[in-house]
Amino acid sequence: MADRSSPGAALLAGPRELGELARELRIDAVRAADAAGSGHPTSSLSAADLMAVLLGRYLRYDFDDPAHPGNDHLIFSKGHATPLLYAMYRAVGAVTDAELMSFRQAGSRLEGHPTPRLPWVDFATGSLGQGLPLGSGLAWATRRLEDGPARVWVLSGDGETAEGSVWEAAEFAGYHRLDNLTLIVDVNRLGQRGPTRHGWDLDAYATRFNAFGWHTRTVDGHDTAAIDDAYANALDTRGRPTVIIARTLKGKGVPEVENREGAHGKPVPHADLAIAALGGEPKERVGAHPRPPHDASRTRPARASGTRAPEFEVGGEVATRKAFGEALAALGTARGDIVALDGEVGDSTGLQTFADRHPDRFLECYIAEQQLIASATAVQTRGWVPFASTFAAFLTRAHDFLRMAAIGQADLCVVGSHSGTSIGQDGPSQMGLEDLAMFRALYGSTVLYPCDANQTAKLVATMASGSGIRYLRTTRGATPVIYPADEEFPVGGSKLLRGGPDDRVTLVAAGITVHEALTAADRLAGQGVAVRVLDLYSVKPVDADALREAAATTGCLISVEDHHPEGGLGDAVAEAFADTDPTASARRARVPMPRLIRLAVRHMPASATPSEQLRAARIDADAIEAAVLGALEAEA
Amino acid sequence: MADRSSPGAALLAGPRELGELARELRIDAVRAADAAGSGHPTSSLSAADLMAVLLGRYLRYDFDDPAHPGNDHLIFSKGHATPLLYAMYRAVGAVTDAELMSFRQAGSRLEGHPTPRLPWVDFATGSLGQGLPLGSGLAWATRRLEDGPARVWVLSGDGETAEGSVWEAAEFAGYHRLDNLTLIVDVNRLGQRGPTRHGWDLDAYATRFNAFGWHTRTVDGHDTAAIDDAYANALDTRGRPTVIIARTLKGKGVPEVENREGAHGKPVPHADLAIAALGGEPKERVGAHPRPPHDASRTRPARASGTRAPEFEVGGEVATRKAFGEALAALGTARGDIVALDGEVGDSTGLQTFADRHPDRFLECYIAEQQLIASATAVQTRGWVPFASTFAAFLTRAHDFLRMAAIGQADLCVVGSHSGTSIGQDGPSQMGLEDLAMFRALYGSTVLYPCDANQTAKLVATMASGSGIRYLRTTRGATPVIYPADEEFPVGGSKLLRGGPDDRVTLVAAGITVHEALTAADRLAGQGVAVRVLDLYSVKPVDADALREAAATTGCLISVEDHHPEGGLGDAVAEAFADTDPTASARRARVPMPRLIRLAVRHMPASATPSEQLRAARIDADAIEAAVLGALEAEA
Repeated sequence: MADRSSPGAALLAGPRELGELARELRIDAVRAADAAGSGHPTSSLSAADLMAVLLGRYLRYDFDDPAHPGNDHLIFSKGHATPLLYAMYRAVGAVTDAELMSFRQAGSRLEGHPTPRLPWVDFATGSLGQGLPLGSGLAWATRRLEDGPARVWVLSGDGETAEGSVWEAAEFAGYHRLDNLTLIVDVNRLGQRGPTRHGWDLDAYATRFNAFGWHTRTVDGHDTAAIDDAYANALDTRGRPTVIIARTLKGKGVPEVENREGAHGKPVPHADLAIAALGGEPKERVGAHPRPPHDASRTRPARASGTRAPEFEVGGEVATRKAFGEALAALGTARGDIVALDGEVGDSTGLQTFADRHPDRFLECYIAEQQLIASATAVQTRGWVPFASTFAAFLTRAHDFLRMAAIGQADLCVVGSHSGTSIGQDGPSQMGLEDLAMFRALYGSTVLYPCDANQTAKLVATMASGSGIRYLRTTRGATPVIYPADEEFPVGGSKLLRGGPDDRVTLVAAGITVHEALTAADRLAGQGVAVRVLDLYSVKPVDADALREAAATTGCLISVEDHHPEGGLGDAVAEAFADTDPTASARRARVPMPRLIRLAVRHMPASATPSEQLRAARIDADAIEAAVLGALEAEA
Repeated sequence: MADRSSPGAALLAGPRELGELARELRIDAVRAADAAGSGHPTSSLSAADLMAVLLGRYLRYDFDDPAHPGNDHLIFSKGHATPLLYAMYRAVGAVTDAELMSFRQAGSRLEGHPTPRLPWVDFATGSLGQGLPLGSGLAWATRRLEDGPARVWVLSGDGETAEGSVWEAAEFAGYHRLDNLTLIVDVNRLGQRGPTRHGWDLDAYATRFNAFGWHTRTVDGHDTAAIDDAYANALDTRGRPTVIIARTLKGKGVPEVENREGAHGKPVPHADLAIAALGGEPKERVGAHPRPPHDASRTRPARASGTRAPEFEVGGEVATRKAFGEALAALGTARGDIVALDGEVGDSTGLQTFADRHPDRFLECYIAEQQLIASATAVQTRGWVPFASTFAAFLTRAHDFLRMAAIGQADLCVVGSHSGTSIGQDGPSQMGLEDLAMFRALYGSTVLYPCDANQTAKLVATMASGSGIRYLRTTRGATPVIYPADEEFPVGGSKLLRGGPDDRVTLVAAGITVHEALTAADRLAGQGVAVRVLDLYSVKPVDADALREAAATTGCLISVEDHHPEGGLGDAVAEAFADTDPTASARRARVPMPRLIRLAVRHMPASATPSEQLRAARIDADAIEAAVLGALEAEA
């Protein structure tokens, strides 16, 4: 067993304590799942020795101060192994035995898969293949943003290495030479349905990680001395991340399930027999004393002196993607906690302006959108405010990471450019036509869609101070600047751009369609038809009051969006007229339901100029004008 | 230059013709982008020699018969290199020079990125990193389903290898030993924003692919003899896919842009100078004569004799996921063209039943959802009917592949299990709560959500015969069988489960909430409150007529869904009351807008039992009953 002579060595567990700790973890994992009547004890038993050595001799963590910046990070990518994770928490005294026995019950923090409802959990996991991307992003933030000493440890299953996201991360971590990152792969050979692709071929994993620039070690995952040696070796490795590939037995220590198929995701059949096989419940628990945190990080997110946001002259034409870039660069000067992350399209999204001005807080993630969002999610756990950006269309690549970030209570800003058909000639593969639907359906999200440069600049500053997942949708082409630079745009608001007592229809638009709606309204005014125009820049939360007021006044609402008809602006408008709580709504004045007409992208676009695209989708000024006249005619 | 002595060798282009063909491709690529005023000529110039050798000596393809099963497949994963692809089509006479000059114009088939609007294109590409997954799936289908001789050639950029999907595919193709697959990586060193991670480090790519079990060759991508040798070597390689890693110059042959940053995605500055530098327009074009297709595949999709669909007894309790599995297995017996694809959860989704009965038409994609959907998309291009299945939550991982499949006019069936909070203890990471929003927003999609086993069985058979992307949402827990086995469930329909002349409210439910709604309705009936219950199993297209009729009769609709409130059932209901064409709607009777109340999952769930979950989300029978009474009280 390696002798770690660094400070705190006195606290290190010896071989006997490690064995006893592993036994304790196994027993508690079996007990927790048995009490719950569900869960994944066999996936926990395979990794118990790996985690006993980590907890007993390597992890530096103050469980009483989980926010300490010098704490290591432990990420269970195999999130289903919560019986083991929570057994570890019990071993260090962070949770009581009574709480451990509340595993998977309603109201318990000890959920089936870990979430940050627990103060020691950085990320929600349970969608496999996310731990390494998150851990890689975190190791980058700790090392490159903060020059901090904390280490990142990721426990992964073997089956989940089939996920491409693992290799995006392997490339990322290898490229950045993140030697503060250690991945532990628990090769227990058995997935959920059956054997994994590579079984116990440890070299298959080693060869792959090695090719991506990693230091690799293979080890018997039940030999605590060998595990200890591998961890020591990881600490000593410079200039490369380390992966420890451990041969283990699923269900190790419980004969009824050890190394057997069909035992995934269920309690062991006889917990009493299992505990007996594990040597019986410990009379005196050894517990574990993780080592103290490192000295605090050398750099921490800080706000710098204020800088004026960019201002754009009304009447000019500026693309909202460009305004986003300038606004974010200015915000980066004003605030030292802003970090920008790119998917190798910074020259198109506007992010390049930030990269030029703040290279130390810019991260190029290359064409790897899962790693882009994982890195942003990681960065925010250490107090930074990330802005991740690529084409709106390609954010669909990271949908599962966004979904899990929402479950993990992550606070992050995401910006999608080149939204809608108005991008023009590049065609449908590059058009974000589903992004509003995707972001609206994320739990706790905010969805913003500006139509001009000043509005964009204000919303960028606003979203930086928000919480949850904030999405900003930008447009490729230049659009007229219609708002003065000092106009305010609160989240949940809208702007009345045209309106009078005689309005007979309300046009509800956002982004590119605001300008088409204004053109149509002005033309109609020339024909004596008064039309209201509402800029619904806050798609979620939506300004229900303004929409209801418009409905009460004009009776008919026409929504116009450069997005598929499902899940976007039209659905957001409809939402304003649906009640969520029939009792509460009884107390407020009922609004007569308006007539709703939806103009949206209902065909499959091809190549065409931006104006041809809007015309083909029937969301341009001509189509809006026709819709208004048609609606009025229908009423007559 | 290798002498390919196989049949058709007489047609092979010699060195001089290859050089002339490459020159012709370059000139046409420059001309096409110049005529369009946009596009990616520099990304085309780098790969012109690679494609000239392929087209002149290796590709076996009858451009007059693109459906010929013996045709090779050529996939441009770098979909932006359409100037080169379309120049190839011109070189073989498939498109005229006049059509080439229509590149990127409205109405032209020659879009900015390729789509199957062109008969020689199998897949829409342009979202990078998808060509290899699609090509790998196609090589598997050609070899393992059909034992066919066709080869798959994929042209990829270098930057896109950062996408994890590429490594899911590399693992898949290596594992299946697909030696009928050749990947050509055009390493031109420059991405969109700047240099790639690995520049011209060809070994970086070779090492990685080699680790995944591939045969690798590095080559000067402008040396036609070396390229020829590499292709010949790929044909001779057995038991492994081959990757040819070619060092190239972006913009090769045009001094103004050759190997320069900042020249991505725009026409070359002076087309006339560029053509002069390329030797001037050819006086007599050599054209190209691709080799004839292979003999037709040995096995093709076929329908076998009919088999009865499974029938379930009314009054029993069966999970819809189980019913799906049994129905698909039976359908697989009746139809020889059904193929099932799993994401290593077949024991949970029901797919295992198919795997046991039809192992020859079952594909285990392991935990790699992008490859799962890519494989399904590939399989359908050869006439098979794929059913791809995993947990609904994890389908978000493949959102971009689904989006591109829709653009590519793919016909595929996708089944998401474990939808909603009702899965219970596993917690939010495993709950599909965004899947309806994701699938509804896909172009041309069909979204089905059965509530009982017989309905599921019928819908499985129905969806197999549909077109576009058809999504079926299943439930984990057992639910009562309420429909007789002979009931029909057309797409776009709904079922009236409770209803009478005195109904004061309509409950609109689907899946798990149908049973909660029925319980609530029956309880309310006991209190003298008549309530209509509509089973809206077809979420898209939605049964607008039934909803409008219910609205006209009962005035108030309450939708209940085990999904987030955005993009799902509530939005689908609202959609039925919005007009898409104001003129057309003038011709039909206007329905007074109903009051809409939406019950949906508005909180972040944790672990709990299924019934506790429904209660916490306020979508159980108690919550529905309270909502009805609240709504009636508000009216009073």
